[in-house]
Amino acid sequence: MKIRFFNARILPLDDKTPLSIGELVVDGSTILAMQSDCAQFSPFDREIDCGGNLLLPGFKNAHTHSGMTFLRSLADDLPLQRWLTEQVFPKEAQLTPESVYVLTKLAILEYLTSGITLMFDMYFSRESIASAAIDTGFRTALVGCANDFGGTAAETADEYARYSALHPLISYQLGFHAEYTTSYPLLRDLSDLAHSLKQPFYTHLNETQAEVDSCVAHSGMRTIEYLDSLGLFDFGGGGYHCVHVSEHEMEIMQARGMTAVTCPASNLKLASGIAPVYEFLERGIPVAIGTDGAASNNCLDMFREMFLVTGLQKYRHGAGAVDANEVLRMACRNGAYACGFRDCDCLAPGKQADLILIDLNQPNMQPLNNIEKNIVYSGSKQNVCLTMIAGRVLYERGEFFIGDDPERIYAESARIIRSMK
Amino acid sequence: MKIRFFNARILPLDDKTPLSIGELVVDGSTILAMQSDCAQFSPFDREIDCGGNLLLPGFKNAHTHSGMTFLRSLADDLPLQRWLTEQVFPKEAQLTPESVYVLTKLAILEYLTSGITLMFDMYFSRESIASAAIDTGFRTALVGCANDFGGTAAETADEYARYSALHPLISYQLGFHAEYTTSYPLLRDLSDLAHSLKQPFYTHLNETQAEVDSCVAHSGMRTIEYLDSLGLFDFGGGGYHCVHVSEHEMEIMQARGMTAVTCPASNLKLASGIAPVYEFLERGIPVAIGTDGAASNNCLDMFREMFLVTGLQKYRHGAGAVDANEVLRMACRNGAYACGFRDCDCLAPGKQADLILIDLNQPNMQPLNNIEKNIVYSGSKQNVCLTMIAGRVLYERGEFFIGDDPERIYAESARIIRSMK
Repeated sequence: MKIRFFNARILPLDDKTPLSIGELVVDGSTILAMQSDCAQFSPFDREIDCGGNLLLPGFKNAHTHSGMTFLRSLADDLPLQRWLTEQVFPKEAQLTPESVYVLTKLAILEYLTSGITLMFDMYFSRESIASAAIDTGFRTALVGCANDFGGTAAETADEYARYSALHPLISYQLGFHAEYTTSYPLLRDLSDLAHSLKQPFYTHLNETQAEVDSCVAHSGMRTIEYLDSLGLFDFGGGGYHCVHVSEHEMEIMQARGMTAVTCPASNLKLASGIAPVYEFLERGIPVAIGTDGAASNNCLDMFREMFLVTGLQKYRHGAGAVDANEVLRMACRNGAYACGFRDCDCLAPGKQADLILIDLNQPNMQPLNNIEKNIVYSGSKQNVCLTMIAGRVLYERGEFFIGDDPERIYAESARIIRSMK
Repeated sequence: MKIRFFNARILPLDDKTPLSIGELVVDGSTILAMQSDCAQFSPFDREIDCGGNLLLPGFKNAHTHSGMTFLRSLADDLPLQRWLTEQVFPKEAQLTPESVYVLTKLAILEYLTSGITLMFDMYFSRESIASAAIDTGFRTALVGCANDFGGTAAETADEYARYSALHPLISYQLGFHAEYTTSYPLLRDLSDLAHSLKQPFYTHLNETQAEVDSCVAHSGMRTIEYLDSLGLFDFGGGGYHCVHVSEHEMEIMQARGMTAVTCPASNLKLASGIAPVYEFLERGIPVAIGTDGAASNNCLDMFREMFLVTGLQKYRHGAGAVDANEVLRMACRNGAYACGFRDCDCLAPGKQADLILIDLNQPNMQPLNNIEKNIVYSGSKQNVCLTMIAGRVLYERGEFFIGDDPERIYAESARIIRSMK
């Protein structure tokens, strides 16, 4: 398919091209051209009149558990430990690979409505996640979640080999669930694997104060210090959440080139705290943004997360902190790098055509005093007209084009949760 | 018009009727019937198949400055004082009554997309606000904003008489801008007015620590203490923001029956703080929710505010604090009471037909484990199918029915800001 977008505003986020009015041509999975007039590339299979609306690189959801959609609004308003032990774990034990396939598709539908074009997904049944992603056309980084309850370094190595080569839409990053669920022998084996593959490592990191305290109690070190002492971040990587991080741990993150993936809605809702995003940025530590799973958030919406990233830092550091342009780079670019996809970060010829069309012709975007600020401070899912991944339109004006019927996915998801004890 | 909604889920929020499946008939401006089958009330001018979606009382925006839409994204990321003195005040000085009329309509368009059916609006040119509200059909409580730069008690009394009788969609509440802009002689006159009319009073209250400190410096009392000592709240009323409130001030609010209107997005973005909503609720002080103006927020979206109300309290008080049902009552009911409209708070025969239809058939609402929690924790504007005020459909599936062309309003709003120095 060769598609021409014309009459568009384009915000490439490539660090050199400012927002301008022009045209963009997609050929196959990549961007062929981006200039004021693209008529020379005709014929086109489709020409889309953008009506002055905005083309932007898609948002990258840098931390999620897509399969948790079945738990949405099931057991909120409980403290973290009761929520996990009384609700989440017993229900998750009843999941099948078939369930995870459907529930991941439900999450993908929601990502598409929010302009999300990439998920960094840590959950069980990675075979099912990969199938759901490939079948719908959704770009996905899988991440290992070995821990004491399942998964070994050898299995992680096998997965790495298998999923790295599986499909252009799939990447695989080494990972384990969290320090508090993974004891020393497994961590040591995983560190050996990181060294043999020379690959970065990702994990839940410093999400709660209790988690850090328990690590100090058994190791004498804070979580990032302890994991770093095992060599796990010698090839970089990053942490999901990173709420309670000391100065010394930030120095480690900086030295290792680690990314902090912030999940502000989940951290508020589970009363975990506010991540030191401002401090990360001051030290040049890249920040990406994740929704976390629907069980804790409960929605998978990058607009909500973007406002929270900036709003919570302004609350802590004053109204000038973490402006809209920084947040857009976190949302559109940094997540791509963390996931190992370096070619879907911005709009430029040769890059993957992972892009969204934002409706500026809505009251919440008017007047157009500053489009970047409008998106971050005022944008909502209602502004997403179109979501494209690798050159395929998967969502357009309320309709999904993912090779499956949303109604069927809703019905099947309802059946899954109703059938559980 | 007699309209039948059928095949609906209905959440009346009347404190006795649970969420159920049924039908609702609107006749003129009021709800005629709400029961499992309303066929007996035929003939109908229109029958709306709700497709299992949810009817809910409209959201009430209990604090806003609608006319500030022209400042959206114009001057963000500045500290409060620079933002006000360098950007807001010089631009506002150039507003005309005609501008306020158009800019208020722009805000009304946005309210409708977010299921907001009532605004409690404090801004200049109340004649223009009332006209915009009446012309579009939008329910509006005007509030006086006398202060040292304009407005007297006599003018406030005239406005009270005029707007209280003007139109069924309009109410008028006594008010003044804020303690820090209003000196003693005017406050004394306004207190006399409250006593002669036996009416409640509303104002910006304890928004920033600096405001409270300055009141202590000149009066020896905190803001609520000082204003109460002048008798301003002897007939109740309330405060917008209420971020920095002492124990003793909460006792005053409780004793006077005052409402706290919380504006969490604005308070984050301007680094004002987090309101003690949890503490208000513990003391039985009613809390309503406002967006504040588009200059500080920057969107006028009740879904964002609802999540922030609960998320920020969970952050402060643990994951069990301020659950979804409480938030829905704040958003749908308490704002109506604060505005002096007691008949648009819930869905019941005889009540005003101010209601919204929420699309549950979207990925962010699936599965339907708990619909109230889905709305507050996962809802977004994208879920608003229809917004009705006083029996008139003003917004339906992306289209506006307000007697004016949105494109004209956008163009005119852009012209207003572009023409300013």
